[in-house]
Amino acid sequence: MKLIEMNQEEGRTLKDRNLTALLPLGAVEVHANHLPIGTDLYLAQALTDKLEEKLGKENTLLLPALPYGQVWSLREAPGTINISNDVLSGMIVQIGKSLEKAGIKRMAIVNTHVGNGDAMKMAARMLYDTCDIKVFLFTYPGAEEVIPNVCESPMPHKGYFHACEIETSYMLYLCPEWVDQSKAICQYPDFPENFDYTPTPWTDFMDTAVLGDAVSATREKGEAIIEHVVNRMCEILEKEAIT
Amino acid sequence: MKLIEMNQEEGRTLKDRNLTALLPLGAVEVHANHLPIGTDLYLAQALTDKLEEKLGKENTLLLPALPYGQVWSLREAPGTINISNDVLSGMIVQIGKSLEKAGIKRMAIVNTHVGNGDAMKMAARMLYDTCDIKVFLFTYPGAEEVIPNVCESPMPHKGYFHACEIETSYMLYLCPEWVDQSKAICQYPDFPENFDYTPTPWTDFMDTAVLGDAVSATREKGEAIIEHVVNRMCEILEKEAIT
Amino acid sequence: MKLIEMNQEEGRTLKDRNLTALLPLGAVEVHANHLPIGTDLYLAQALTDKLEEKLGKENTLLLPALPYGQVWSLREAPGTINISNDVLSGMIVQIGKSLEKAGIKRMAIVNTHVGNGDAMKMAARMLYDTCDIKVFLFTYPGAEEVIPNVCESPMPHKGYFHACEIETSYMLYLCPEWVDQSKAICQYPDFPENFDYTPTPWTDFMDTAVLGDAVSATREKGEAIIEHVVNRMCEILEKEAIT
Amino acid sequence: MKLIEMNQEEGRTLKDRNLTALLPLGAVEVHANHLPIGTDLYLAQALTDKLEEKLGKENTLLLPALPYGQVWSLREAPGTINISNDVLSGMIVQIGKSLEKAGIKRMAIVNTHVGNGDAMKMAARMLYDTCDIKVFLFTYPGAEEVIPNVCESPMPHKGYFHACEIETSYMLYLCPEWVDQSKAICQYPDFPENFDYTPTPWTDFMDTAVLGDAVSATREKGEAIIEHVVNRMCEILEKEAIT
Amino acid sequence: MKLIEMNQEEGRTLKDRNLTALLPLGAVEVHANHLPIGTDLYLAQALTDKLEEKLGKENTLLLPALPYGQVWSLREAPGTINISNDVLSGMIVQIGKSLEKAGIKRMAIVNTHVGNGDAMKMAARMLYDTCDIKVFLFTYPGAEEVIPNVCESPMPHKGYFHACEIETSYMLYLCPEWVDQSKAICQYPDFPENFDYTPTPWTDFMDTAVLGDAVSATREKGEAIIEHVVNRMCEILEKEAIT
Amino acid sequence: MKLIEMNQEEGRTLKDRNLTALLPLGAVEVHANHLPIGTDLYLAQALTDKLEEKLGKENTLLLPALPYGQVWSLREAPGTINISNDVLSGMIVQIGKSLEKAGIKRMAIVNTHVGNGDAMKMAARMLYDTCDIKVFLFTYPGAEEVIPNVCESPMPHKGYFHACEIETSYMLYLCPEWVDQSKAICQYPDFPENFDYTPTPWTDFMDTAVLGDAVSATREKGEAIIEHVVNRMCEILEKEAIT
Repeated sequence: MKLIEMNQEEGRTLKDRNLTALLPLGAVEVHANHLPIGTDLYLAQALTDKLEEKLGKENTLLLPALPYGQVWSLREAPGTINISNDVLSGMIVQIGKSLEKAGIKRMAIVNTHVGNGDAMKMAARMLYDTCDIKVFLFTYPGAEEVIPNVCESPMPHKGYFHACEIETSYMLYLCPEWVDQSKAICQYPDFPENFDYTPTPWTDFMDTAVLGDAVSATREKGEAIIEHVVNRMCEILEKEAIT
Repeated sequence: MKLIEMNQEEGRTLKDRNLTALLPLGAVEVHANHLPIGTDLYLAQALTDKLEEKLGKENTLLLPALPYGQVWSLREAPGTINISNDVLSGMIVQIGKSLEKAGIKRMAIVNTHVGNGDAMKMAARMLYDTCDIKVFLFTYPGAEEVIPNVCESPMPHKGYFHACEIETSYMLYLCPEWVDQSKAICQYPDFPENFDYTPTPWTDFMDTAVLGDAVSATREKGEAIIEHVVNRMCEILEKEAIT
Repeated sequence: MKLIEMNQEEGRTLKDRNLTALLPLGAVEVHANHLPIGTDLYLAQALTDKLEEKLGKENTLLLPALPYGQVWSLREAPGTINISNDVLSGMIVQIGKSLEKAGIKRMAIVNTHVGNGDAMKMAARMLYDTCDIKVFLFTYPGAEEVIPNVCESPMPHKGYFHACEIETSYMLYLCPEWVDQSKAICQYPDFPENFDYTPTPWTDFMDTAVLGDAVSATREKGEAIIEHVVNRMCEILEKEAIT
Repeated sequence: MKLIEMNQEEGRTLKDRNLTALLPLGAVEVHANHLPIGTDLYLAQALTDKLEEKLGKENTLLLPALPYGQVWSLREAPGTINISNDVLSGMIVQIGKSLEKAGIKRMAIVNTHVGNGDAMKMAARMLYDTCDIKVFLFTYPGAEEVIPNVCESPMPHKGYFHACEIETSYMLYLCPEWVDQSKAICQYPDFPENFDYTPTPWTDFMDTAVLGDAVSATREKGEAIIEHVVNRMCEILEKEAIT
Repeated sequence: MKLIEMNQEEGRTLKDRNLTALLPLGAVEVHANHLPIGTDLYLAQALTDKLEEKLGKENTLLLPALPYGQVWSLREAPGTINISNDVLSGMIVQIGKSLEKAGIKRMAIVNTHVGNGDAMKMAARMLYDTCDIKVFLFTYPGAEEVIPNVCESPMPHKGYFHACEIETSYMLYLCPEWVDQSKAICQYPDFPENFDYTPTPWTDFMDTAVLGDAVSATREKGEAIIEHVVNRMCEILEKEAIT
Repeated sequence: MKLIEMNQEEGRTLKDRNLTALLPLGAVEVHANHLPIGTDLYLAQALTDKLEEKLGKENTLLLPALPYGQVWSLREAPGTINISNDVLSGMIVQIGKSLEKAGIKRMAIVNTHVGNGDAMKMAARMLYDTCDIKVFLFTYPGAEEVIPNVCESPMPHKGYFHACEIETSYMLYLCPEWVDQSKAICQYPDFPENFDYTPTPWTDFMDTAVLGDAVSATREKGEAIIEHVVNRMCEILEKEAIT
């Protein structure tokens, strides 16, 4: 069920349905020229739709996506919107508290943007401490188990993926209408020596925001990873829902 | 143009296009049984779409809607999500600052929920003081000029409208697929004596959140008011865009 | 009773007297040349004195006036003092909490400056959520019912009045010693086109802060409105005090 | 000159007059039964009036008193109002910034309540760091030089005076109409052993808030100390005004 | 016992031992050329060691020193580290709360830097209000009783001592290895006229941070004062521990 | 050079020496029974000492260790001290700003506790945005390259190590005097199913805080990893120092 489609009467029944609330969380951030600025938002919504379908609409409460995320690394690139950790986690906490008032016991944040991680963690801990809703934080859980098997190009950085073979494959599978693969490029930027150890905006070392080989992306690769991720999220939530 | 559909290259051109950014701002709040919990969000998006069309896509930058708003009065009703003024205005301010970095000079907030007013004003003043983007705050501007001519039922309260003839008419015009007019009711609640002078949750005096006669709503009434509102927003923004 | 005139013994009896605390709230803001910078403060004190008298000193606890208010619109005019919403509402909240400790159950804020409205609302909601004192927010309640009958000059703006026929009449009735009617002017400023929709300091469009026709002000007009306002405040508070 | 008595025209001349702004700062705090709860406020106002007279009205800008102060130690006594350091210093800072906008270069805070000291210091340092107004903090400067000569009763505590020979003498000199000397008592409370080293509300060890011998207070003692304090404040400010 | 030397098992026994936690609190601040920048930290540690020894290791829980303090007055001198009151008191509060979780009932802050006073007081009051641990604030308690008897040089200021006869004597007694008495100077700076009444960085009026006669410092003077201070702290804490 | 050992004169020369400031950052957190509660602090200090030696004392400015860190996961275990991200990052930021005032251009945080990561990142970004000091964040950089080669026992969790073969080996190499290897245990706790996806205090699933096989730790393993880490930190900082 979609929260925004329900009426007031249905709202009153929320507490009796053992639902898991699903909050898609994206970002508005440049993703090179073959992917749109809304890539993370499109992915968060599509991935949550898959999860909702798999868990069953009768078991879930789909929330409106939070489109804006924390984007420090590319905040200088025109078109990016950057929200601070404080404001972002504040919003998540307040969503969680309102859901708890309605009797919801579980909320899963389906996030597609690594930069949101700290704010999500802060919010989840705050909710842990102050109210009775259990929060699950998902940023493609299980993807790391499939990626080595399906992806062909090396990742230029161990911790980040961006507009690359992986993310472009996600888009080709989940939102192909928003991909212009003709503009995909392969780019292995020269990371500054100490990139991993000191704050470094990505705009300092690349004009087009691609970390790796977007050209080698395929729908099939995206499908393999995403389906695994969806299954993993399902498993986790179903175990919880039984208890 | 929609910001989330643009690519990085197009992002770089934002500063040269004399665009007005449009931010739809809604709320997640129970609206009786004939209207969905997402009423304000649906309206914000549909109204902004009308405005975008009228101003011309080449003159506007459509932002993703902010779905969550400040809903103190109905925060106890299950299904409502309530965001504090601080967090909401913080998010608007940070969106504005990121747009200014991209060279955008004007942002209009197309709001459909009266409860967002204080946070919007706080954010607009903060942006006035700290950066070079002009913010317009719209909550159905000009509606008050048309409502007395087209609406038939009296308003139970001078300052608020909610799930009533007016708002239901908006929905019948802009998002008829989300209205179940068979469940519309006419309700003139007994406001507590001092409702206007002391904080009073609406759930204290009505079970179903309707302020007036939703039955008398029609698509035509909605059209008359909304079209006037859209024209008014256009006028305001076009004057600005010329200077 | 005035709080500041009581001694410690009397302080201990506060909890047994079913008193309504009265907090005059003004502002320090330029009011043209015929009215003093302290206009709102003088009015708040005089209006509260009338209210105290009408309710009976034995039923009220008069607090010292808070002289400083939120004055965004005229903050650039030398002589104006501008307090932020956060600090102003913080002070009101802490006054309310201390009163609650003393056993006071009702506090009415008698405010004469429209710009204080948001901070007052924030404070009243915070007190609603965190302690057991009922807060009443008064900014000339009922004035709008009398003004159309007694005032002759049109208002240049639907939402604001300032140093005009209305406010000058208030002063002529309540504090005539502070009015120099020989300097009163009639001024209908050219509001910027989008004044209602975007933050606009008043100093941008008028040198002398008058919104309308101060010349037509009279003591009698002030008396008619103010007496109605006082009666209205009394009614509201007396109903509460009985319950 | 009193700020609140000036008009807008006069406000514009503030920047040219080399004025010292005077801010009386008191507190609302129980002071036993012979002195009123408003003692600190009455004293702050009367002391500032003396200072204004001595400095010359043409050299000063008298501000409305801030009645509410930080009163941790007696916050449990009914009738006391306790404001946090944050809110109190925030208000002082914002008053200072508005004055600086008007061209005022010096502000003296005439404080009569020791508990306001930390907030005053925080505010003065903040103003030092962020704007061009010089702040003077006065809590009876020089009193310690005269007290040993004129007071007869020992002080029960080295750091605090309250409703005692000293403060009652101040009141007998400055505001005799608010003293009921027939209720004055002599009280040397048993301070808890570690009073000076751990937070200890005064209400833990005395029912009536008197620290010493209020009976021995006289108008003459008050005059001797207060006149010295006024002279001292004058000296300090006149030296500054010349440079 | 030192907290950091204990293991997890021992941690579980903390609640049963009736221990007083000791928190050394220093500062990193220039202290002329004969004393090191870490003077306050060295003193805080050495003083706490003495206290621990006197109280008995079995009665105390020694915490790691907090090295960084609030140093407004000398913050411009290179080498000084300045922490704000908010952050410093926040850290103390959180240490206190964690100790309370472990069952500790008393914490003494052994502070050697006057500038930390406000933050300590804020923290102690916050802990008083929010949890069940009793906090003792020590900044050389009792020193004022011995200093007049043992020190020979006048103090240039009634409220401050810094790198002078007193503090240098403390160092000669507690940490002689960090004193280079050959560089000690005697300096009576010309305090600005209004030093006591308006924020004044010490770097405005002296190049070398010495307030008085460091040359006359001796180990014996330090011993006399410090031993008295240690006894005084012991007395206070032992009284508490019995109750 | 150690900052706290320098005098004021030496402080003035800081700006001319092209120094890298080194800030050891630990935590106070239970580490089972074979390691002390101060493990992270001992390690931070010893590791920084090695780094200082390798870089050369003439090239570094050693700061006092910050002993207290963010310890959410084991905050319930008696003996642990837990500092919030806000306070911890605030302290780091203010240390950085003071160093910048002294002319220091680089600061490396030598951290040994994974839980400090978010606060460190927040602080480094804040310093990046507001002042001219370059911050390096080190939490055993390069360790992941050596661990697979020298460690024999599997890690029970991919992201955390705690009081295990790795950390115990670090202690055996760097601070053997604080290890009681006779109490070392091998423990592979049953992580709750969804440990990685929802906030879960470690005290929920293990009584003794060991993640893996502490028994297999050796001094040699510690040496191999730590020496590599020290070299890596050197490399990074030396590259920076040249530019």
